[in-house]
Amino acid sequence: MTVKHFEGKIAALCGGVGGAKLALGLSCVLAPEQLSIIVNTADDFEHLGLSISPDIDTVTYTLSETVNPETGWGRKDESWRFMESLERLGGETWFSLGDTDLATHAIRTARLSGGARLTEVTRDIARALGIAVPILPATDDRLRTIVETDEGALPFQRYFVGRRCQPRALSLRYENAQNAALTPQVVAALEAPDLAAIVICPSNPFLSVDPILAIPDARARIRAAGVPVIAVSPIIGGRAVKGPLSKMMQEFGQPSDVDSIARHYADLADVLIVDEADRDTAFEGPVKHVAKTLMNTLQDRIALAAVVLDLTNELRGIKHE
Amino acid sequence: MTVKHFEGKIAALCGGVGGAKLALGLSCVLAPEQLSIIVNTADDFEHLGLSISPDIDTVTYTLSETVNPETGWGRKDESWRFMESLERLGGETWFSLGDTDLATHAIRTARLSGGARLTEVTRDIARALGIAVPILPATDDRLRTIVETDEGALPFQRYFVGRRCQPRALSLRYENAQNAALTPQVVAALEAPDLAAIVICPSNPFLSVDPILAIPDARARIRAAGVPVIAVSPIIGGRAVKGPLSKMMQEFGQPSDVDSIARHYADLADVLIVDEADRDTAFEGPVKHVAKTLMNTLQDRIALAAVVLDLTNELRGIKHE
Repeated sequence: MTVKHFEGKIAALCGGVGGAKLALGLSCVLAPEQLSIIVNTADDFEHLGLSISPDIDTVTYTLSETVNPETGWGRKDESWRFMESLERLGGETWFSLGDTDLATHAIRTARLSGGARLTEVTRDIARALGIAVPILPATDDRLRTIVETDEGALPFQRYFVGRRCQPRALSLRYENAQNAALTPQVVAALEAPDLAAIVICPSNPFLSVDPILAIPDARARIRAAGVPVIAVSPIIGGRAVKGPLSKMMQEFGQPSDVDSIARHYADLADVLIVDEADRDTAFEGPVKHVAKTLMNTLQDRIALAAVVLDLTNELRGIKHE
Repeated sequence: MTVKHFEGKIAALCGGVGGAKLALGLSCVLAPEQLSIIVNTADDFEHLGLSISPDIDTVTYTLSETVNPETGWGRKDESWRFMESLERLGGETWFSLGDTDLATHAIRTARLSGGARLTEVTRDIARALGIAVPILPATDDRLRTIVETDEGALPFQRYFVGRRCQPRALSLRYENAQNAALTPQVVAALEAPDLAAIVICPSNPFLSVDPILAIPDARARIRAAGVPVIAVSPIIGGRAVKGPLSKMMQEFGQPSDVDSIARHYADLADVLIVDEADRDTAFEGPVKHVAKTLMNTLQDRIALAAVVLDLTNELRGIKHE
């Protein structure tokens, strides 16, 4: 880690597990007011009457160090008595809800039904867990990823959890994206006068980043920010670190490699940070920057965050010359 | 216990803990098709986005022997990790929800929001717990007890749990009662050709029984059934076995004794079963029948149920002569 001093702000676009790890790293090398984490909400869904926001919760639990370290999602020291009872009572058990995790959903559900915005609820839950960094839902409006598969259209969680990504994905749509708006908080983060860079975390481009980019004005506002856009590849050595990304890329007719990621972000990213394993892979579009991107430990996460900040300083130097 | 054979059916009006004990006793001495338990729903409320039906759940847990034997409500072997988490997250903790109990509320909430009737949901949860006796919500329509107190109007659970019955009760109203209807299942239970008796369990008359009676036609249908109405006093030796009944009676200017209970049910009950402690208390209205009504053990509950059936046989003999 070489960053000694960093001025200005970072806005990070983020999905769940992989993205949250870099978000945690960034939160360790920046003051809270220097970082905004803009989180995907298109995985959100309603289940058993509860409003569930998986990516927001993963980021919140990760930043508060209450996340299950084995899985990267859910809470550590979780218990499952609710699920056992639900099963005995004949309820729907395809989506696991831990006893302590349930409290998050109950609070969110109650507050949303009382008229609060997801942004407010997310802020208050994060504060209660001691998080000072703003975790910002990309939108407070309904936005839902639908996976068109060879077995028909599936809401995201039905595809992802219910069917374990087994159906062949044909295409994706982000339901209601055209009617959704970035929140004022997200707009303010992207318009911050001292914004130094926008970071696209190593999240699934199709499932976590594209839904944010599908919100009207999102791409335009990112470009209008006039700062370096630094993406971190979620693909290492030809495969996704986690989740259905590789399978999905293949189903979409794209090789599962960093070249495909570079193409995907070609019109948006100035730099693509790739792992050392991909040092020799050439691609067009964003500038290649090599670093250790696999984040097994907290130190890995902080080190990658430092790489992002160093790179930002470097690009800023270039841009400002 | 003297009942050897009982023909016909019993319909029991019931609230929570005390009533549920007699309902359990009746379920032990009758075949499932001989018993219908008509349960108060005016304590129901919405909390943290969940639809909660305290009396129905108490009856369901009691009949399935999954009730907490210490309290008479909630589930045995309960855990409280949800509540701990809720507290940490700054949620509303005035109403305790156990981890396994939560599953009941989640299923009910999801099914009600999917358009199911409370009667169907209650039936399915009871079946999942192995209960064959019909547990019938008095109504599928919204019905809510509001307590007018010296601190203003309080929804029942806010008064009962939130404020531990501390405000002085001035009067009660059963919100929306005039628009509620007995369910077809309740009507069928009261119209059953082989109905032998209607039992008013030892529940709080104001909070558990009157809300049922406030539903249009309820009193008329009970009278039209043409069978003995047997009430069991919730007052023993001048005090309520449980809950705020004695305090409430005093606040309403009524002595907390079986005479007041007799007056309360004067136009409805043919017999009032009172405890041995009240053997010498005279009252007008219903015929006094003395029995051991304090139900500490399962055997006590079965014995009191047997008293009810014996009495029904006796009254039937008289009525049919």
